[in-house]
Amino acid sequence: MKELFTPIQWLPEGKVRFLDQTRLPQEEVWVETADYTRIAEAIQRLEVRGAPLIGISAAYGLALAALSAQGSDVEELRSHLYKAAVTLRATRPTAVNLGWALDRVLQAVERATDPEQASSIAVSTARAIHDEDITGNQRLGDFGAALLSPGAQVMTHCNAGALATGGYGTALGVLRSAWKGGRIAHVLANETRPLLQGARLTAWELREEGIPFTLIPDSAAGLMMQRGRVDAVVTGADRIASNGDTANKIGTYQLAVLAQANGIAFYIAAPTSTIDLSSASGADIPIEERSPDEVRSVRGVSIAPDGIDAANPAFDVTPAEYIAAIITENGIARPPFANSLRSICERGVAARG
Amino acid sequence: MKELFTPIQWLPEGKVRFLDQTRLPQEEVWVETADYTRIAEAIQRLEVRGAPLIGISAAYGLALAALSAQGSDVEELRSHLYKAAVTLRATRPTAVNLGWALDRVLQAVERATDPEQASSIAVSTARAIHDEDITGNQRLGDFGAALLSPGAQVMTHCNAGALATGGYGTALGVLRSAWKGGRIAHVLANETRPLLQGARLTAWELREEGIPFTLIPDSAAGLMMQRGRVDAVVTGADRIASNGDTANKIGTYQLAVLAQANGIAFYIAAPTSTIDLSSASGADIPIEERSPDEVRSVRGVSIAPDGIDAANPAFDVTPAEYIAAIITENGIARPPFANSLRSICERGVAARG
Repeated sequence: MKELFTPIQWLPEGKVRFLDQTRLPQEEVWVETADYTRIAEAIQRLEVRGAPLIGISAAYGLALAALSAQGSDVEELRSHLYKAAVTLRATRPTAVNLGWALDRVLQAVERATDPEQASSIAVSTARAIHDEDITGNQRLGDFGAALLSPGAQVMTHCNAGALATGGYGTALGVLRSAWKGGRIAHVLANETRPLLQGARLTAWELREEGIPFTLIPDSAAGLMMQRGRVDAVVTGADRIASNGDTANKIGTYQLAVLAQANGIAFYIAAPTSTIDLSSASGADIPIEERSPDEVRSVRGVSIAPDGIDAANPAFDVTPAEYIAAIITENGIARPPFANSLRSICERGVAARG
Repeated sequence: MKELFTPIQWLPEGKVRFLDQTRLPQEEVWVETADYTRIAEAIQRLEVRGAPLIGISAAYGLALAALSAQGSDVEELRSHLYKAAVTLRATRPTAVNLGWALDRVLQAVERATDPEQASSIAVSTARAIHDEDITGNQRLGDFGAALLSPGAQVMTHCNAGALATGGYGTALGVLRSAWKGGRIAHVLANETRPLLQGARLTAWELREEGIPFTLIPDSAAGLMMQRGRVDAVVTGADRIASNGDTANKIGTYQLAVLAQANGIAFYIAAPTSTIDLSSASGADIPIEERSPDEVRSVRGVSIAPDGIDAANPAFDVTPAEYIAAIITENGIARPPFANSLRSICERGVAARG
């Protein structure tokens, strides 16, 4: 059995090593850094991306910040960490895992009585967040696979794979588990403009895994559903409100509407760290607007007249009514989500307690 | 008032001059040819595209074929034209205007008694098809503009503009007429992967016309509707079946479903030459599958791992139930389309008769 691929690693000498995903699939470039501001830059530039991986990267960023502050007293170190957390938190607004991971490291460090202990706790907490993400995704994948019938044709959007997480993936974790269990006949991967995470990243992962798949333009999703080429849609999530409304990569909402119009089940796969019980509904979720240059060009090549106006919302919100189930590492939440999401989060706390 | 832009022209010396649309918006390259096989190549390569313009180009192609056959007797000339028509007809399968225009030229030439007369009829018929398309689009545009309320925010897909027709455009003809009448506040242009006709061509035309617009990825259409940024969707058509089912650029079907889910009117704008009364429903319309290379790359730049499978259906079919009205040069057809489309086609025959 081949070793599990992880897009980010903690190196024993106190460095982080991550894959620069903006260069995929043409080049596999790994970056090593001991500087937390380089991690913030990587999140901002989408060198690392995907809600769970953003959280893990930010946690490792705080661990680097703790190590680089060695020598100061514990209060100075904590204030250095709070400053670093502000920088890391400001990188991207939509994924709730970012704040969740930063807060977990900051809280753990509260019990430290000296700087060495604080650094050691920051590192071990970040590593625990990473490890738990991988084992959680494997459980999530197995829960999700059970929802698919043998021979399933599944559509996915963007990349919610090993590359979006600590490893194994959420939506692609479901596909990996289902493929191992002989339940997948074929996958349709939407290319996911503007940044083409489907064409570049999901296609790369599916090919590595040997799962049969076809790449399609986002605009062909409806036709494929009409033609009976899709039995289920599975995507990841960047933030899930307490009523089940789900923010995910731009284009997800329209897939959910099309799935309903064609009688196809639409599933979200995400760790419970993506659930934000403090957001009552999707209306409370901030949607990141990115540079119009990402729309006016593709991989550096201009595709539109110079200087025209373009909009680049990075996410949309799928109302809960379109979602058949939310698959987590603690099990599957079904509508009505107001109850099921709260209980699935508590189940996690109980299991860890 | 500036002169009307036409993407194809008949030159007095017996040549055709057309704009190579694959080079837009970076370059405006005009091609002159007296060779009908160059026209066939231009249609196949999408140097000229859009259902009405495909028809006009094919008609001019037959006119060139007639001129190049000079000297032979009239039967030889007709058999040369039939051979040229076979080549031109095979270029693209979905747009019905192609066959309609070829048949109209071939039929007109039947009454010729000598080769000179036959050539002259072929040229004048092709020019009439072109002229009628322009005046028809202006009528169509005015009919369609009346459907929009002042201050309308309109979404369009692909390019159904001057560049898709003899001039003025169908869906963009509606926007031009509405803009002149003060009814347009803002247009959203979908980029239209894989060949980006929205980003390249519609953006170019809207900028030339001075109509305020924003380019968006195809995947952001649903979000813009959710946000209340769309009062109506207007697209062109490549073939309309007698029950109103409409084939148009890939991605149109999903816009229609999203429009319905958001309570937004969805309109088709097309000349009656696009209506195929011999197709009972969308199931009878052949859908062109183009090269997967168009999906695996953008403007020559690879966007996916080498050698992966990709699907590239060029069109989809929007079921009639999603269409509020079909706007033609003879007026507006409303559901049930089985009656209204037949009567609107007959109205055209009566007007010409």
